[in-house]
Amino acid sequence: MRTLTTLLFPGFELLDVFGPLEMFGLLQDEFKLVMAAEEAGPVPSRQGPATEIDVSFYELAEVDILLVPGGMGTRREVDNARLIGQLSAISETCRQVLSVCTGSALLAKAGILDGRKATTNKMAFHWVEEQGPKVLWQRQARWVEDGKFFTSSGISAGIDMSLAVIAHLHGEERAEEVARIAEYEWHREAGWDPFAKVHGLV
Amino acid sequence: MRTLTTLLFPGFELLDVFGPLEMFGLLQDEFKLVMAAEEAGPVPSRQGPATEIDVSFYELAEVDILLVPGGMGTRREVDNARLIGQLSAISETCRQVLSVCTGSALLAKAGILDGRKATTNKMAFHWVEEQGPKVLWQRQARWVEDGKFFTSSGISAGIDMSLAVIAHLHGEERAEEVARIAEYEWHREAGWDPFAKVHGLV
Repeated sequence: MRTLTTLLFPGFELLDVFGPLEMFGLLQDEFKLVMAAEEAGPVPSRQGPATEIDVSFYELAEVDILLVPGGMGTRREVDNARLIGQLSAISETCRQVLSVCTGSALLAKAGILDGRKATTNKMAFHWVEEQGPKVLWQRQARWVEDGKFFTSSGISAGIDMSLAVIAHLHGEERAEEVARIAEYEWHREAGWDPFAKVHGLV
Repeated sequence: MRTLTTLLFPGFELLDVFGPLEMFGLLQDEFKLVMAAEEAGPVPSRQGPATEIDVSFYELAEVDILLVPGGMGTRREVDNARLIGQLSAISETCRQVLSVCTGSALLAKAGILDGRKATTNKMAFHWVEEQGPKVLWQRQARWVEDGKFFTSSGISAGIDMSLAVIAHLHGEERAEEVARIAEYEWHREAGWDPFAKVHGLV
């Protein structure tokens, strides 16, 4: 059983969080879902609906997998030195670090993607690039795997990446089973990314 | 501005709720998202993470669009006479009623789908059918539109249906724009449903 901890902050994007948690959550015997944030109490999403948290982001016992979503809240959190510092510390010790959408801006700001390949939301690409000039940003990719880091494109791309992480940890067949249960057509090629063109990046 | 009210109950399926709310939530000027449940306080999903509610399901002021998700909690709620009664009353007055996955079991139990075409989760199809023998259940459909009712297949299908509802209300172009922002490949054909075969229904 692995602990999958999601970092929430005000203005997180709903599907960035709950697309992945749906997929991991379908394997209840494999992943324990933990919701963390800076402060206690419900955390409002960018769209409004608020999620309860289980634990302070500064008092995490053990993190096997860390999930960092995006959303408008990242515009503020890139300047939150305490949060960025803790992100850096946790990333050192955990097995996998996942980001969806502009969540990679927070990882980039923490410096932990320096010299690594990563991707992000295709509409916010240039802003995210600025948060980590030493990151090897990939313009066309549904998601990018580099060492223990999995970074995905915008919003819905987190679902495809999560299935890739499940395949990485538990085999392709298990990931396909999860996709079937969710009645989801998995884009299993990390290079599948029509939105890079749609949003003028290639 | 339309009010989109989501009915939550313990054991709701995460993506059934937040897939649609991501899509509607991207049109912040068009839809006001309201979370309702029987009781105050956070409502735990089937996967664990809990969502705050805004209002009691029995004290709703105005509902333009009602969203009813599925999840294991529906197995209990089909026998909740008070909830089913209120569902029936609200469905009478609101403009659109949407269900995702086994959410249609609750609508079926309320009798409001009798004589109408509807669909549901492809793995739980037979159980849902039993909740409404007079419903014209469609085995192969990503979603079904019949009058003001939009019912979708399992879990991820709610995203495609929501885009169809947006297209219905605001035009195809607006729905395409939302899909592009979410970097989502919309299955825009209501008849697209490979999962009916995968799960042995056709």
